Formats: sequence, C-alpha cells, structure tokens
Amino acid sequence: MDQPIVVMGICGTYDLNSANGSLLKIALDLCEGRGAETCIWDNAINPLPLVGEEGCWDHANVKLYKEMANSADAILLSSPEYHGTMSGVMKNNLDWLSSSQTSGKLFGLMSTLGGQSNSNTLNHMRIAVRWIHGWAIPEQIAIPQIKEAFDDSGNIKSELINQRIEDLVESIISNSIKLRR
Amino acid sequence: MDQPIVVMGICGTYDLNSANGSLLKIALDLCEGRGAETCIWDNAINPLPLVGEEGCWDHANVKLYKEMANSADAILLSSPEYHGTMSGVMKNNLDWLSSSQTSGKLFGLMSTLGGQSNSNTLNHMRIAVRWIHGWAIPEQIAIPQIKEAFDDSGNIKSELINQRIEDLVESIISNSIKLRR
Amino acid sequence: MDQPIVVMGICGTYDLNSANGSLLKIALDLCEGRGAETCIWDNAINPLPLVGEEGCWDHANVKLYKEMANSADAILLSSPEYHGTMSGVMKNNLDWLSSSQTSGKLFGLMSTLGGQSNSNTLNHMRIAVRWIHGWAIPEQIAIPQIKEAFDDSGNIKSELINQRIEDLVESIISNSIKLRR
Amino acid sequence: MDQPIVVMGICGTYDLNSANGSLLKIALDLCEGRGAETCIWDNAINPLPLVGEEGCWDHANVKLYKEMANSADAILLSSPEYHGTMSGVMKNNLDWLSSSQTSGKLFGLMSTLGGQSNSNTLNHMRIAVRWIHGWAIPEQIAIPQIKEAFDDSGNIKSELINQRIEDLVESIISNSIKLRR
Repeated sequence: MDQPIVVMGICGTYDLNSANGSLLKIALDLCEGRGAETCIWDNAINPLPLVGEEGCWDHANVKLYKEMANSADAILLSSPEYHGTMSGVMKNNLDWLSSSQTSGKLFGLMSTLGGQSNSNTLNHMRIAVRWIHGWAIPEQIAIPQIKEAFDDSGNIKSELINQRIEDLVESIISNSIKLRR
Repeated sequence: MDQPIVVMGICGTYDLNSANGSLLKIALDLCEGRGAETCIWDNAINPLPLVGEEGCWDHANVKLYKEMANSADAILLSSPEYHGTMSGVMKNNLDWLSSSQTSGKLFGLMSTLGGQSNSNTLNHMRIAVRWIHGWAIPEQIAIPQIKEAFDDSGNIKSELINQRIEDLVESIISNSIKLRR
Repeated sequence: MDQPIVVMGICGTYDLNSANGSLLKIALDLCEGRGAETCIWDNAINPLPLVGEEGCWDHANVKLYKEMANSADAILLSSPEYHGTMSGVMKNNLDWLSSSQTSGKLFGLMSTLGGQSNSNTLNHMRIAVRWIHGWAIPEQIAIPQIKEAFDDSGNIKSELINQRIEDLVESIISNSIKLRR
Repeated sequence: MDQPIVVMGICGTYDLNSANGSLLKIALDLCEGRGAETCIWDNAINPLPLVGEEGCWDHANVKLYKEMANSADAILLSSPEYHGTMSGVMKNNLDWLSSSQTSGKLFGLMSTLGGQSNSNTLNHMRIAVRWIHGWAIPEQIAIPQIKEAFDDSGNIKSELINQRIEDLVESIISNSIKLRR
C-alpha cells in the first residue's frame, strides 16, 4: 500500500499567526483531509539565519529545515507580495533549499496582497521553483485585500477563493501520487 | 551651484567582502570620480532584521538604513542570483525601503552568477524598483562565472564588463542631474 | 525655443477601434493638452507583417513604421493581456523596433484585462523596453474588467484610472523634456 | 495497451527552415525514438493570421491549428529571444490556443539567442503556459550564439545541450504517461 503523501508548508511571513500562516494551515488541513501528512516550518520558533550571517553555515535550524524538506513529497509556499515580488523572508527560506531537497517535487503557490490582486509574487516563486527543479502546478492563489479576507472565525470569506484552494490541494495530492509512481 | 549627487550602494550578499560588495565598491568609486558622494549599507556591521522578526519595527539599524536611503539621490543594487532571482538578503533590504525613500530616484542594477549569464535577478529587481516608484535605468550588469571574474588585485578582468560598469555609472550620474532639475 | 515633444502610440490590438485603441487616444489627447505632438500606428490601415513572413524585410509599412518611431521622443504602449503577457500583435510591433529607434526614449505602459487586474503584460513590456534601451517610467496603468470600463461616450468611468493616466502623461512629458536637455 | 503519446511542436520563427525549426525537429525525433507520435505546425505552409486581422475568426488555418493542438498530449515550444522575450510569431501562435486545448498537458520550453544565454523567453513562455493551465516542466533549453550552434550536418555541436534536449524529451514522455493515468 502506498505511503501517504507528505506536504510541507513554507511561509513568507515570519510569524505563522498571520494571514499567510493561516492560509497555509487551511491548505494543509485540506491536504490532511485527502489522506496526506503535513508539516510546517515556523521561523518564530526555529528562525533561519539570513544566508551569509555569522554562524549560518552550521546553524542547527538550517539542518532541521533541510530534513523537513527532504521528508516532504510536495511543498506549499505562501508569501505576502512586498514591492512586486515575494517577501525577503520567503526568499531567504527558498535560499536554504536546493534541488537536493526539491527536485521533481510538486509546489503549490499562494500569495496575499494588501491591495488589488496581482501575480508578481506567484510568477517569481514559479521561476525560483523551477530553478531548484521543482514543478509548480498551474493552480495558484492570490488573495487581494487580505485584511478583509478572513471572517471572525478565521475562515476565508470568498467562496471562489476557497474553491481555488481546494482545487490546488486536489491537484497537489492527486498529481504527486501519479508522478511518484 | 548644484549639490553633488549622492549614490547609495545596497548589497545582496551579507558581507561586503564578497564579489557583490567589490562590484558595488568599484561602481561607487567610479561615481566619486564623476563628482558624486557615496555611501554603502553594511549588514555585517549594522544588520537589518528580517521583516517580522521580534523587535524589527523599532530596530535602530532600520532607522539608520532609511536615513541613508533618504539622503541618496540614486541607488545601486548588486545581488547574487540564487535560484533564479535576487538573494533573500537583497529582498529583505528592499523590503525595508518604501516609496518614501525611493520615489523618482534612479536605480542601477547589477548581479553576479556562479555559472553562465542570466537576467532573472536584474528583471526581478527591475520590477521591485518600479513598485517603490524608482526608475531602473536600462544599463545593467550581469557578471557570469563570478569566481573567475576578478584578478588578484581585485579588479574585474573583462574589459567589456568594465565598460558596462562605466556606462551604467555615467548614466546614473548624468541622468540623476537632469531629472533633479 | 524647445521643439514640442512627439509622442507615438503603439497598440496591442489590431484595430484601433478597440479598448486599447481608445485608451491610447485618451492618453495621446492628454499629451496634446500638454503641448506635445502625437502620432499613432494603425495596423488596420498599414499592417505590419509578422517577422519572417515572405516579403517582410522590404515591406513598405515596416519602413513607415520605423520612420514614425524615429520621429518620436516618447512612446506609449497599450496592450491587452492574453495568456499572462502582451498580445502577439504588440510583440510583433515591438519586434520591428530596435534600439536605433528607441534608445534613451521614455515609454509609458498601459494594459487592459478581461478579468481582474494584473501586471504580467506591464512587466513583460517593461523588460522588452529595456532590451531596446528604452526607459519605461514607473507610472503604469492596468485596467481590469475592460468591457465595463468605458461609458457610452467612450470615457473611462473610473476616476482613479483617469487620474493615473494623467499622472503617466505628466511624467512622460515633463521627464522627456528634462532628459532631452 | 496504452496509446502512444502525441507531441506537437510550435515554432517561434515563421519558417521551419530555421534554427528554432531545426531544434524542434531534433527534439521531436527524439520523442519518436521513445515511441511518441509527433506533429509540427508550419506557418510558412499554413499561416496563422494575427489575432484581430480581418477574417481571422473563421480562418481555416486556425481551425486546423486548434485540431492539431487538441490531438496532442504534450507540446514543445521553441522560440528565438527577441528584445528580452519570445517572438511575436510565438506569442501569436500561443494567442490562438486556450485552456480548451492545453489544460493539464505538459509543455517543454526551448529558446535560442543570438548572443549569450538568457532565460527571458523561457520565463515568459512558462508564465504564458500556466495561464492556459499547461504544465511547463522544469527541464528547459536556451541555446546561446545560435549562429554557431549547428554543424554542417545540422546537428547541435554542444554535447551539454544535446544531453539537455534528451533530458527534456525523456521528462516530457515519461511524465506525460504518468499524468495521463
């Protein structure tokens, strides 16, 4: 019998108590609902150093982070859009990955925006994912006006966006299974 | 009589003792040769926190950094290309700027690559610069095979690239003067 | 006394009786209001061949087109977004330009979308403009839901977008004058 | 028993007697060597009109083109890089496709450059492919200095690039089979 797919979440805001952290958790919960196992990297608990910072090359958290990525079959990225591209936190997270961890794995891309919708962050993450030989699936999510996107219970209000998250998760899980064969 | 143009350098490697730091210094020296004043941000001495890190919002270095950017008429960016885009260090540096510091100022873009030449980093920095209402000039520099790019005296070997740096500097200075009027 | 600035419009829909053609005309009219002279390329009257098509290299319209571009001090591009980038018509128009016509000239970028707003077309035109050594200004316009964007008199309904067009035109004209010096 | 995978080639130069046409044929031959059936669109024989040109909407060649794309399981794109992005011919070819023809199909991306290597065209085609819900695989090819790339027999000289073409073809065929299940 097949092992469950393991999906890892990587967040472009430092703290998971954030819109991007919430978005990741919603998507990872849906992955679990489809039989996957999940994990999520938390910079607030285990901060990754900036690449080049003193002590970065032997940093214990970098080792943990790479182990988590190694264990994953698929990866979800969720980043705020700052200045027309992903956040520095997200890029630094990606800088600590290489094709050793990610080659041939599926990536699902999500982003949030303070104002109107845009795809800059999704596009740049798509290019970065290719550079580490990952497969960014076509399904992707941009949530505009992020401050009004969640209701008081922490659910996303827009049915359209909820449907898109479900489609992304379905694609990640079903195609990870197909490509693993 | 006109005030001299002030050009600030921002580096995408943490340490200025690096190819990108050297490239910045070469370009800033050329700026001085054309009558400009220059300054350079050094994360190794005054590290910028990651956006969202505890204490980041009142960090003394962020304040210093914004003051330096405010004082500049033009900005040079020099980033390594990691995974098909600028480094996390460069993006975090840019995340701490906003149009308050950069609107209408000229930016010169430079990048270095471990392997063959590419423009991913330059392109993504160009888009980011636009988002903070800066003007990225058309002249730009990508240095491939960066480990072989410098001679023992720290000069860039390629005459073509040296010429391109001079062209970029000439454009930054002369057009900053024209646009300031 | 200074010659007036000449602004050329290039359209990414074949026919100027289109949203993109209308958008160009609105912007060019504003340019004239600021003392500029204007011209516009019309593929419906003088079609440009696809690059590589039989007879393309000596095509009379290509010659006319290059002459018009040579005469311009600044260029406005207006393209629909098809499949996440500029239209084939716009790209073919750009393919017939080179830095001989465009080096150092300012470009203003505008795009229209059938659905929600996005910057894919603007970003890709910005990169293309750099490749022909043009200066794409930071001010740019994306009009979403284009089928509902105009009123019965052919004016753009959104005050915000009208203001953005005015800002783009102001920047093109005033900065073309500064840089020409 | 499984049907063979059908791979379609789409060329960004008008004439298939060109570097991009040759590159496509080399890749399609390798696809046949792996049991695939192949087809290629030839604008010199069956020109596609520019979108918006008179008569374009009912053009017989557009119908033929869509039928060919419908019949394909995977698509190879090969475009010259003009002005920092794909050619107008390639973009017009893509404009005549929609997700009806391409959703869920794998795309292999190839480009050629007159000068040094770059990924602008590959990146922009990757974004466009996503917009029509295709899957652009991570393997991709950019051939620099294209005028010196082929020997007198029409073979590509660089062993590295030949290997990359084989890897791209292997990925397209094997993963198309996996995802079709």
